[in-house]
Amino acid sequence: MLEKHYSSPEVLDLLGERSLVAAMLRFEAALARAQAATGLIPEGAAQSIVGTCKVELFDVSQLLRDSGRNGLGPALVASLRETVGLFNPQAAVFVHRGCGSEDGLVSAMALLTRRVLDRIECDVLSSVTALLALAGRYPVTPLLERGLSQAASVSSIGLLCGAWAAPLLRSLHRLRRTAGEALCVQLDSALDPQGAEVTRRMAQELALGVTTMPGATRSDEWVVLGCELGVLASHLGKVAQDLALLGLPEVGEVQPELSAGSRMAPLSAAQTVPHRVAMLLTALARQDARTLDAWMPDWTEWTRLLLTVHGSARALAQVLPGLQVDTARMRQHIDAQRARLSKEAGETGRDPGLAPHAAARAEQQLQTLQHELRLLQSGAAA
Amino acid sequence: MLEKHYSSPEVLDLLGERSLVAAMLRFEAALARAQAATGLIPEGAAQSIVGTCKVELFDVSQLLRDSGRNGLGPALVASLRETVGLFNPQAAVFVHRGCGSEDGLVSAMALLTRRVLDRIECDVLSSVTALLALAGRYPVTPLLERGLSQAASVSSIGLLCGAWAAPLLRSLHRLRRTAGEALCVQLDSALDPQGAEVTRRMAQELALGVTTMPGATRSDEWVVLGCELGVLASHLGKVAQDLALLGLPEVGEVQPELSAGSRMAPLSAAQTVPHRVAMLLTALARQDARTLDAWMPDWTEWTRLLLTVHGSARALAQVLPGLQVDTARMRQHIDAQRARLSKEAGETGRDPGLAPHAAARAEQQLQTLQHELRLLQSGAAA
Amino acid sequence: MLEKHYSSPEVLDLLGERSLVAAMLRFEAALARAQAATGLIPEGAAQSIVGTCKVELFDVSQLLRDSGRNGLGPALVASLRETVGLFNPQAAVFVHRGCGSEDGLVSAMALLTRRVLDRIECDVLSSVTALLALAGRYPVTPLLERGLSQAASVSSIGLLCGAWAAPLLRSLHRLRRTAGEALCVQLDSALDPQGAEVTRRMAQELALGVTTMPGATRSDEWVVLGCELGVLASHLGKVAQDLALLGLPEVGEVQPELSAGSRMAPLSAAQTVPHRVAMLLTALARQDARTLDAWMPDWTEWTRLLLTVHGSARALAQVLPGLQVDTARMRQHIDAQRARLSKEAGETGRDPGLAPHAAARAEQQLQTLQHELRLLQSGAAA
Amino acid sequence: MLEKHYSSPEVLDLLGERSLVAAMLRFEAALARAQAATGLIPEGAAQSIVGTCKVELFDVSQLLRDSGRNGLGPALVASLRETVGLFNPQAAVFVHRGCGSEDGLVSAMALLTRRVLDRIECDVLSSVTALLALAGRYPVTPLLERGLSQAASVSSIGLLCGAWAAPLLRSLHRLRRTAGEALCVQLDSALDPQGAEVTRRMAQELALGVTTMPGATRSDEWVVLGCELGVLASHLGKVAQDLALLGLPEVGEVQPELSAGSRMAPLSAAQTVPHRVAMLLTALARQDARTLDAWMPDWTEWTRLLLTVHGSARALAQVLPGLQVDTARMRQHIDAQRARLSKEAGETGRDPGLAPHAAARAEQQLQTLQHELRLLQSGAAA
Repeated sequence: MLEKHYSSPEVLDLLGERSLVAAMLRFEAALARAQAATGLIPEGAAQSIVGTCKVELFDVSQLLRDSGRNGLGPALVASLRETVGLFNPQAAVFVHRGCGSEDGLVSAMALLTRRVLDRIECDVLSSVTALLALAGRYPVTPLLERGLSQAASVSSIGLLCGAWAAPLLRSLHRLRRTAGEALCVQLDSALDPQGAEVTRRMAQELALGVTTMPGATRSDEWVVLGCELGVLASHLGKVAQDLALLGLPEVGEVQPELSAGSRMAPLSAAQTVPHRVAMLLTALARQDARTLDAWMPDWTEWTRLLLTVHGSARALAQVLPGLQVDTARMRQHIDAQRARLSKEAGETGRDPGLAPHAAARAEQQLQTLQHELRLLQSGAAA
Repeated sequence: MLEKHYSSPEVLDLLGERSLVAAMLRFEAALARAQAATGLIPEGAAQSIVGTCKVELFDVSQLLRDSGRNGLGPALVASLRETVGLFNPQAAVFVHRGCGSEDGLVSAMALLTRRVLDRIECDVLSSVTALLALAGRYPVTPLLERGLSQAASVSSIGLLCGAWAAPLLRSLHRLRRTAGEALCVQLDSALDPQGAEVTRRMAQELALGVTTMPGATRSDEWVVLGCELGVLASHLGKVAQDLALLGLPEVGEVQPELSAGSRMAPLSAAQTVPHRVAMLLTALARQDARTLDAWMPDWTEWTRLLLTVHGSARALAQVLPGLQVDTARMRQHIDAQRARLSKEAGETGRDPGLAPHAAARAEQQLQTLQHELRLLQSGAAA
Repeated sequence: MLEKHYSSPEVLDLLGERSLVAAMLRFEAALARAQAATGLIPEGAAQSIVGTCKVELFDVSQLLRDSGRNGLGPALVASLRETVGLFNPQAAVFVHRGCGSEDGLVSAMALLTRRVLDRIECDVLSSVTALLALAGRYPVTPLLERGLSQAASVSSIGLLCGAWAAPLLRSLHRLRRTAGEALCVQLDSALDPQGAEVTRRMAQELALGVTTMPGATRSDEWVVLGCELGVLASHLGKVAQDLALLGLPEVGEVQPELSAGSRMAPLSAAQTVPHRVAMLLTALARQDARTLDAWMPDWTEWTRLLLTVHGSARALAQVLPGLQVDTARMRQHIDAQRARLSKEAGETGRDPGLAPHAAARAEQQLQTLQHELRLLQSGAAA
Repeated sequence: MLEKHYSSPEVLDLLGERSLVAAMLRFEAALARAQAATGLIPEGAAQSIVGTCKVELFDVSQLLRDSGRNGLGPALVASLRETVGLFNPQAAVFVHRGCGSEDGLVSAMALLTRRVLDRIECDVLSSVTALLALAGRYPVTPLLERGLSQAASVSSIGLLCGAWAAPLLRSLHRLRRTAGEALCVQLDSALDPQGAEVTRRMAQELALGVTTMPGATRSDEWVVLGCELGVLASHLGKVAQDLALLGLPEVGEVQPELSAGSRMAPLSAAQTVPHRVAMLLTALARQDARTLDAWMPDWTEWTRLLLTVHGSARALAQVLPGLQVDTARMRQHIDAQRARLSKEAGETGRDPGLAPHAAARAEQQLQTLQHELRLLQSGAAA
């Protein structure tokens, strides 16, 4: 009843406040290096700043308390400036030079989001790999296609696994695309002379994107990324729901039955994530953002979205690779439903058995999906 | 208090039941032509079918009543088969040959959605064009940037119009991309021998896309399209809200004040659309879709989403081209807030006047946006 | 894929546009009678007005088209005034005397909502009656309590049926309470001299409530009523989900398996209604309502909420009275899960068999619920 | 951008993990006392247990870590049993005797919720008191009623303040009612012999309610309470929005302009709370709750709801008592809009000036509201 994310301790840590401050310091260090390289600040000042950008030099709890009035961005910059000044008084003035007050925080959110997305992608790829292996092993083994908990028609393990895998592959593809657009270096001065060069260098160092449009108004791209996470969570929830039915002790078509956690994580995610996405959309329309400022999702809400989707992806990645199918029970259940299937078939024209071209379809579907999977694995997403 | 979409009568008509049936008949005609061209059905049968696919030959109200038991798809096919049979008994059996029962309906939804999206795009392009014209005319004319209804800093008309326009351009770009993915010919037999060729021909005739993956599981792509409409609606709502504040009689920085309808449409859309998007996401996860069947958004909910977003886009397209700015009042309000701005500036480091590089920024931003606009107008979206 | 409400044709009709106009005319007739009785308008004028308040005298489609500019309220009043004037020119001026323009529409919404709520209540009472009969017949017959599709512990049919019934009884109780508060005569002049007496007479004739606070700001009470409908829909969805699992062919603990429609209606309602309730709450906060005007839920959205909840209540009312239980299979499934239950019991302290006081609990619970049911049936809800 | 609740540090503390554990210990102490008083456990054992139920004897962080496997309830009971056993080995077995594993946690949530609701009620009462004082001071002072940011008609300060206050009073009334129903002692054995007496005693000690129906299925009542908080948040948001417009520097009808925080808290609450309520409704319908177990809102989500609504209530309670009105500017703005008001009046029949019975209405409204306020203050809510 206390908050359960079903995410891993590593990811909980990754999205914690210490990680956020560390990522903001990475931003400041990258900024100083890039500004020195383009001659905007002295090389010596940059070295002092870079040397001070270590999270262990800062009191994170104190920073969070100090962030009450003006936000975490200004609080960290003030603290960094002070610390740099202790060692190199001339360098202090070059800290966060020419930057907007939110630039560090937004860029840090991009850095941390990037790392969680990598985990999510990795888990979903495991699930897809497992599903395609099953599809390859049992392309035309028949199983009941149930609709509304009723036998509806006959499909095959291969076709079912393909139908589960295809939206996952499309989600991964779209996540790369939208993350590439949303997760950029935020730099208020990106449009100023030399700002473009600074941004380019920082993006390279931090492995973030560069936007060609003014950075301050890209909140829509974060919301689009949130929407994509929502679509992924919904589909993972559907797969988990299907698996739970097939794994009921009394059905027993797949083994092992899902553990409570394995099932709970994707189902719970599928229930809450649509509301979280709606919150992002509502906030995007709010009147009160400063017109030209970057509105960003509330960090707490955003991390809950990431944690929830990660927990969901992880749960299925733990279950699918070890999934066993009981083809005898599948056949037995089809036989038990034969009368209903024939009646349905008479009314709807659906085949009471496996459709004529099922083998060819399953084969072609599998090849297409394997091709998509290889594309993703080689990083060659469109 | 009765339903108000703020959409145009033409679009209300376009999404009506008669239009839906007409679009389903376009699908059947295209199918027959393509199947005849690939030798799957006789040329004469195709001609009979094509000749009968005219909405005025059908009793739309009766069809809707008949659709209770098995859905509109089977009801229309049965009626078409019967009508074709009256003139050419041999041809009846070739109607809807080898198709899934929902293929016609899903493809028809794609056709109608395509047409409404064209209107939305056209309206948003008008708004963007108007905003960039304003930005070009007043690049550095100062105006108050208000946050939480308070003066926060000084920006310029050019920068503000750019900040309004940039997310609109990005939305148009992403809408083309996601619509291209979602709005495909749906053909159950697309994976069968010759099915690919039939699909390709139909797609060309109907100006829809072709999917390389099995068509039956692409509901995620419709939901992604719905999410994009949600992001657009939220941003249009924000622009309308900002304009309403600037146009208050007591503020009077822009003219004319928005009419009730012009303001109501985008605000109301921004309020309801997030919930509609959440409904789509919730439905995507529902357990009870037949596992391999295409789940599609409920047509009524989907049309309300389209109508709402169209009404919003249309309202701003009617207001923005005629917008007048009162630069004297803008200046006057800045002067009245001078003390507060200076105080804020002291605390946050924000400039109490227009920032040093504002002119260069406004210029560069405008060029980038004009470039994006030209890309979209030339149809060359990535 | 076209809109499916699962409601009955009678209720669809009841919430149609013709019914709405008819209810508005009932309001006008009641107003005229009450104003004549209190001496505010001449008796003869009231007779003319009452005689003209017949829906068959009006062109409903034309009225709806005319309602574009100023809303349906003013359009109907104008038309009524004109029609009354044809027969009795002196009476026309007494039509809708001293009323707000929305009073008729809001009161008509209350009238129609009242009638649908009566149907919903009737259906839910049938379901509760059936559940309590089952609970009385099988108070301690053991069945598996499943959590997350896994056997969790042993309960009894009696306890389960009681757990399904109790929230339904509470919902009915609260619905009466909140409907009594929300569904009042709306009269702008209720606070004026003699207005109170007019309102009291109208409320009696129309079987609606009287509010002691100014009528114009009671939108919160409508939203509370919407929330209660949401809670009911969620619980009906849960019962349907539980039943669907018990009725799976492979589980077979209850018969008959739910039909597609019976299951779909409550599940679909439970998925969409939370979003509809959220829309009501969002609209309640909207800035743009005229400050002192009654905001009312959009009639189209409101009717969809009513239709959806009615369809859900009706589906279960059709299934539960005929429900058969297969106690042998229930016993068999418990035996098959004995090992897991004992293991769970060791860890959590839950009993692997039916708990010691189960019979007494089931009995006491049943008596409490039967008492609540009788209270509701006798109309004596608090 | 980090989480901002706008709640007070005291309430943040009140809902923290340490408070939750302390409340669970209060439950265990009350249980032991009641069970000893009814002869279910030895008096000496009860004394040992009560003496050990002190939060400072427990390592809260360790408990939370231990709660991973079986939840916080079992973890605390195990720890309490162990600690009691150190001092009085015979007493350990009487800890949490005959209770469900979630009983302590659910009752503790009720205790903490009760305390936050008291703060919310207190803040809302302050706001209502301030509004009624204003209404009494300026009953018929005219001000523009704006709809959609446009002048719509003329109202009075008294009528406006009444229209703001009435829904707040109704919310308080309903909150007491629904809190009284939801916030009960949870005791699994409440239906057992002597269980009723134990529950009654505990309820008295803890100032919680007693439910006559089986405790395990009252999740609906928590969700209803959540809905009521949602309705309150929406209306507070509307009042804040109205105030923000009246307080714009360029409008200046009220003083002081709202501070950023005062405005942000209720607006942000009104934006997010509808989605949180929808989450509660969705969760209520979820399939996977153990059928007879109490489902409870996720504690983290529930506390966010409480914190958000408290922050909103508190913000207005800080602003309204000091609100100043500028009646000269109000008059001036009415004069400036005279032409539009007359035009509107011609079309809609609305009065271009203050309506004839406004003084009587304002007076009667004020008396009704003052009466309601006194009822609430005297605790005599229905």
